[in-house]
Amino acid sequence: MRTTVGIIGGGPAGLLLARLLYRADVDCVVLESRTRDYVEHRQRAGMLEQGTVDTLREAGAADRLHAEGMVHNGIELRFERERHHIDFPALTGGRTVTIYAQTEIVRDLIALQLADGPPLLFEARALAVEGADSARPLVRYLHAGREETLTCDWVVGCDGFHGVAREAIPASVGRTYAHDHPYAWLGILAEVPPSCEELVYARGEHGFALHSMRSPSVSRLYLQVPVGTAPKDWLDERIWDELAARFAIDADWTLERGPITAKSVTPMRSYVHEPMRHGRLLLAGDAAHIVPPTGAKGLNLAVSDVRVSSRALAAWRSTGETQLIDRYSQVCLARVWQATRFSYDMTRMLHAQPDGDAFDQRMQLARLRRITASRHAAAELAANYTGLPLPE
Amino acid sequence: MRTTVGIIGGGPAGLLLARLLYRADVDCVVLESRTRDYVEHRQRAGMLEQGTVDTLREAGAADRLHAEGMVHNGIELRFERERHHIDFPALTGGRTVTIYAQTEIVRDLIALQLADGPPLLFEARALAVEGADSARPLVRYLHAGREETLTCDWVVGCDGFHGVAREAIPASVGRTYAHDHPYAWLGILAEVPPSCEELVYARGEHGFALHSMRSPSVSRLYLQVPVGTAPKDWLDERIWDELAARFAIDADWTLERGPITAKSVTPMRSYVHEPMRHGRLLLAGDAAHIVPPTGAKGLNLAVSDVRVSSRALAAWRSTGETQLIDRYSQVCLARVWQATRFSYDMTRMLHAQPDGDAFDQRMQLARLRRITASRHAAAELAANYTGLPLPE
Repeated sequence: MRTTVGIIGGGPAGLLLARLLYRADVDCVVLESRTRDYVEHRQRAGMLEQGTVDTLREAGAADRLHAEGMVHNGIELRFERERHHIDFPALTGGRTVTIYAQTEIVRDLIALQLADGPPLLFEARALAVEGADSARPLVRYLHAGREETLTCDWVVGCDGFHGVAREAIPASVGRTYAHDHPYAWLGILAEVPPSCEELVYARGEHGFALHSMRSPSVSRLYLQVPVGTAPKDWLDERIWDELAARFAIDADWTLERGPITAKSVTPMRSYVHEPMRHGRLLLAGDAAHIVPPTGAKGLNLAVSDVRVSSRALAAWRSTGETQLIDRYSQVCLARVWQATRFSYDMTRMLHAQPDGDAFDQRMQLARLRRITASRHAAAELAANYTGLPLPE
Repeated sequence: MRTTVGIIGGGPAGLLLARLLYRADVDCVVLESRTRDYVEHRQRAGMLEQGTVDTLREAGAADRLHAEGMVHNGIELRFERERHHIDFPALTGGRTVTIYAQTEIVRDLIALQLADGPPLLFEARALAVEGADSARPLVRYLHAGREETLTCDWVVGCDGFHGVAREAIPASVGRTYAHDHPYAWLGILAEVPPSCEELVYARGEHGFALHSMRSPSVSRLYLQVPVGTAPKDWLDERIWDELAARFAIDADWTLERGPITAKSVTPMRSYVHEPMRHGRLLLAGDAAHIVPPTGAKGLNLAVSDVRVSSRALAAWRSTGETQLIDRYSQVCLARVWQATRFSYDMTRMLHAQPDGDAFDQRMQLARLRRITASRHAAAELAANYTGLPLPE
């Protein structure tokens, strides 16, 4: 098979890229290793920056998002039994965030893709990218039991942290930066209305907890747990008890409990691969960088990468010039490092540090107190959380 | 001897407290263990927040400071061979800082004290505070070869980190928080005009350097060195070469060299003792807390503590009420922890971290880039550097 842009990975990054390229009249093919059903049910993030919403609208994929997404005007920081509202619109000149599950975005994009083309192959497992530094890179992949070849002008790796695309960048030209945080998140989905309207970031003495939601009837809650924890280690009652303790403020606030329908454990890792381009291969999203979920930045960074790459590829398609593609890695990385910094700082500020001491705890509280006392500090949090400007 | 407020330590904290109490008609005695000559020549900090200047003026001790102090409108951040000016007045609504050496403040205060009283005893070495939780605490001290007793209504320990006052707080009621940074500063005084008008905070690949000044003809420069470095380990030429390398940007900028007249090594420590009061004993300045010098906060925190304590003691003297004294520790510590946070963050952002990796270096650069890109981030730095509001 032959195409202009070969896209490895049919998650939100790859599907959105295909959609943006389709609207710019650039041919592409998407190879997704899993089944449609698997991809449409994978539970992931759900906090969209304003720029992510705008990009999905630009891709013509925001109808249901606008109808069903829950616009949020801020978050709540909770510590030492106090609650503090961070008012995003007031601090950022009107910016908000939107709760709409990644899995819903994926469903919307798949439906559009299958209706309009271009090709989207499920159960097409990429094996390797070859000739990344040649004029005709290709993707070898397995599909319906046979090994196939997709010959491209450009390949974009949207295949996540464990994908094969990044492996095509020789170690001699690439460099990785990583930090593993010494804790994990136990996340649950529960059939119970959210206990309050806002996302609540709680620094408890025994660890962090996050109150979030998927819909008006489904709560999404997270609990800091030790590295190596398995979901089965925690019985439902223990999860609720621990969540209730970490969110506790006073008698006026109660954590509502309900049936837990899913449990999973997420490691907390910061990772960046430089550069994000090698020859005719570009990396986008988790294929190039991972952030701990505390700042809700993973999906949003992927969308930002994809937006930059779609514009650069469309410009090349219409002019033959590669200036934008040549700047792709540098432009994306500037924003990636800022989101990595923000995610790292939010993570360090809110989690009980297993290797920390009493001094570190006082530093955490001093940071939280400063955010609640200083408009500049609060505005910095709000600007980063709602999303730094998208690259032009 | 009998007095209302016994002050241990004749550094800037103790001397300023005596001056403020004198103007409020509260009797006090200052005990200083060293000679006048020693105290007047001790080289220390020299960067005064606006509130410190205001407090010295309030104490009637700012005439020479106003004549000779150098008002600074900002600092320069230097990294990756770029220079970035942080404009304090523009970012803070007009606030500035003033360079005036601590040793000059001490001279001014001693002259006033000796002219007006109250008693200031040199070579009077405090041995212990006794009865801190009684109505009549006393200070035992050695003077002219004899052990003496100073009986007080209140004792204020301004005797620094190694003083005896803090020891009078039982371990059962006190708690300490500490962090030792894994590097030190080699500081020099040089007979050469400053190489530029501003303080320059430089993050070099091999470590931090700070360009400062004592006067239009005397430069004050600092170099990050390993823990355990002795001043004699560094020959003058090596110091200048290393400073020049760390400040290097382009051919337009040259570090001027001159005779080095003093060399010293300062450890980098963060330390806080809670509470800052026990019964009738108050701690102020370094006796209660230490910050690494990167944020230029040590002297300024001492002045802030002293201002709060002088008002509280004056209120008690005129009304017999202890409300302000009862709040002393809590009020001071809120500001102390913010300065501790700021000093810690400035230190971590600018120094080569011996225990750091490539990821940590990228985090440092992302923080510096953010300060130069975001008005809120720059304003936060400016607000903290010029000094958070003094407690009322």
